[in-house]
Amino acid sequence: MSSIISKFEALATDNAPGQEVRQAEGNIRDLMRGDALPGHPVDFSHGDVDAFTPTPGSFKRFSEAVEAGGRQAYTEYRGSADIRAEIALKLEEFTGATVSAEQGIILTPGTQGALFLAVASTVADGDKVAIVQPDYFANRKLVQFFGGTVVSVAMDYMKTPTEAGLDLSQLRAAFEAGARTFLFSNPNNPTGAVYSRAEIERIVELARQYGVTVIADQLYSRLRYRGEEYTHIRACGLPEDRILTIMGPSKTESLSGYRLGAAFGSPAIIERMEKLQAIVSLRAAGYNQAVFRTWFSEPEGWMEERIRLHQAIRDDLIAVFRDGGLKTRTPQAGSYLFPTLSPLSVGLHDFVRLLRHQANVIVTPGTEFGPHTGSIRLNFSQDHAAAIDAGMRIVEMADRYRG
Amino acid sequence: MSSIISKFEALATDNAPGQEVRQAEGNIRDLMRGDALPGHPVDFSHGDVDAFTPTPGSFKRFSEAVEAGGRQAYTEYRGSADIRAEIALKLEEFTGATVSAEQGIILTPGTQGALFLAVASTVADGDKVAIVQPDYFANRKLVQFFGGTVVSVAMDYMKTPTEAGLDLSQLRAAFEAGARTFLFSNPNNPTGAVYSRAEIERIVELARQYGVTVIADQLYSRLRYRGEEYTHIRACGLPEDRILTIMGPSKTESLSGYRLGAAFGSPAIIERMEKLQAIVSLRAAGYNQAVFRTWFSEPEGWMEERIRLHQAIRDDLIAVFRDGGLKTRTPQAGSYLFPTLSPLSVGLHDFVRLLRHQANVIVTPGTEFGPHTGSIRLNFSQDHAAAIDAGMRIVEMADRYRG
Repeated sequence: MSSIISKFEALATDNAPGQEVRQAEGNIRDLMRGDALPGHPVDFSHGDVDAFTPTPGSFKRFSEAVEAGGRQAYTEYRGSADIRAEIALKLEEFTGATVSAEQGIILTPGTQGALFLAVASTVADGDKVAIVQPDYFANRKLVQFFGGTVVSVAMDYMKTPTEAGLDLSQLRAAFEAGARTFLFSNPNNPTGAVYSRAEIERIVELARQYGVTVIADQLYSRLRYRGEEYTHIRACGLPEDRILTIMGPSKTESLSGYRLGAAFGSPAIIERMEKLQAIVSLRAAGYNQAVFRTWFSEPEGWMEERIRLHQAIRDDLIAVFRDGGLKTRTPQAGSYLFPTLSPLSVGLHDFVRLLRHQANVIVTPGTEFGPHTGSIRLNFSQDHAAAIDAGMRIVEMADRYRG
Repeated sequence: MSSIISKFEALATDNAPGQEVRQAEGNIRDLMRGDALPGHPVDFSHGDVDAFTPTPGSFKRFSEAVEAGGRQAYTEYRGSADIRAEIALKLEEFTGATVSAEQGIILTPGTQGALFLAVASTVADGDKVAIVQPDYFANRKLVQFFGGTVVSVAMDYMKTPTEAGLDLSQLRAAFEAGARTFLFSNPNNPTGAVYSRAEIERIVELARQYGVTVIADQLYSRLRYRGEEYTHIRACGLPEDRILTIMGPSKTESLSGYRLGAAFGSPAIIERMEKLQAIVSLRAAGYNQAVFRTWFSEPEGWMEERIRLHQAIRDDLIAVFRDGGLKTRTPQAGSYLFPTLSPLSVGLHDFVRLLRHQANVIVTPGTEFGPHTGSIRLNFSQDHAAAIDAGMRIVEMADRYRG
């Protein structure tokens, strides 16, 4: 029993995005300086699917699946063969490398489901895994849950706007030290940094040299801003069984309420993922899988408009933060900002609670992504005006609690 | 890498229900005796949701959730607070013991999701777990996946129609040998046996004596046949933190395509389950959760009629099997039959493949549930006439391949 308890301590969700409602108010009133900052509540912990609504036609696809009945309720554990065939073609076109509908793709409950199964299927007790700092908060937790050891690789995301800033010598050192799996998000969560072609090619070179399996979380790879290039690592010459890519329509397409994700690439890893999915949740909800049919088939111009609107929010919010003295990288893709706060007179977690209770703003503390005690993450897929207004309240709060 | 591969070998899904389409045809034509047995295809590996359709109003509830938007797309990891409050009350009434909406219930992607999280949250590397033979196929796999050791407890389900037939001295021996978790389904899957009050009380007594945590999978506890009694173990005096019950609307209510399950009871276990759900799939799909509102709120008489129709199929199918010489326990609840075949001239897995290729009938081999090489499992939640006809083909096939 004690080993179970210590195993779960590493999984703390107290500061995880979306769990804020479970936090007790505690002593927060005692810490407050000044009055409340009124304003429309904004929850930057995730995108607002009321501001950016789900892909047109998604509900219709779901309805058709319910009509279809049993055929769609029960699918293979890796997902409906028809739907796999459809999206394998689209993913092939998007990423520029073959996807086998039969052996090379699995549908999962969200990209979180894909990440969980992928890590479970590659990392065993005692294995070393290279993880970027900062990167998606679940990556570290997943490695630890399966008994692996995280080997951190720093990313200097403020260095240049045209590269992610991964420390490639640290990556080599991680592989040299025995890491045989490299798990990373591209675009990076939380910074929105996109890896340059040169960085991706160097990662491939090192992975080939050391026989490393690469898991690329490309959840945000469709939401790319004007003029930005993107390199799909799966099309860069890694051996077929050493590369797995994860994507899904939860973010840019606002289909999060349907919980859909996909992993594609290595047939060997996918076969293990399916075996595990059989005891984790059987399959992505059968009717929901049909919503995948809208993916990469959005109405003409819809995605371009969505990107344009996000870019406008990004630019306005960055201006607010920079004017307010918060250093912020310009994300090349995705809808996250990861500004650096000036030194504070309160701890980061208290500041985040103050933001919530005093300024009606929910953000995620940087500590969820690595040792980033001076940063907060915002998902700016929000109502434009409300987001800018909330951004100004953050700046005001950062001033009030300056250390 | 080799440790990952051996870990996943135990998770074989080749004969798992629903995966039959992935099996190669192999040499099956060489084994065939006689002509094909024509007939409407029946897939007994799961219920037919076209024959028994989802709860009235379920799709409407889903549609309302999509309309509600972000509020319903993103819920706490343990599920929407509103919906937890609603179903906690209903489960309290159904089971006869308190359910705390705030601390004592988690919504999961199917009951499979609940089982996975529950086992992960109670069983650590090296722990012994008491598992009934026969019982749901995933139970053993889950224990093994988390490094636990299965201690088998036999159930003589043919002994008497009014008890499950659990070998209570073996259960005591399992606890004596160090098992501190007991995971069992009631009604039993695959036999449909229901534990008598005396059996449940004895289980509680032993669990109290040895400090054992009990996980009760009650997926089928609503589909009880005329005159059958049922004892909810959670209302029988186990300490609050040592009992977790799992249910869901996938079977009797035919809502499997929505992937919904719930675990309720021990706040300590549920807290760990939520932490894990955060990295497994975040939450049960947000919109889907709303379908829970139909649960225990079905139209007047709907459940009674559904039970009556299942009882009629059960009785006719049992008559077919008994006339054909296949010993079959009468299930007191649920929609599974687990008949014993006479000795065969081919292996069980070949016989199951022959049934599929020659007689258009899919069943699950008994080996998925324990060392039951002479049995097959059928989910008889099917079109009545088609099920009886398929039952007759099974009898004919058992005759043709008699050893």
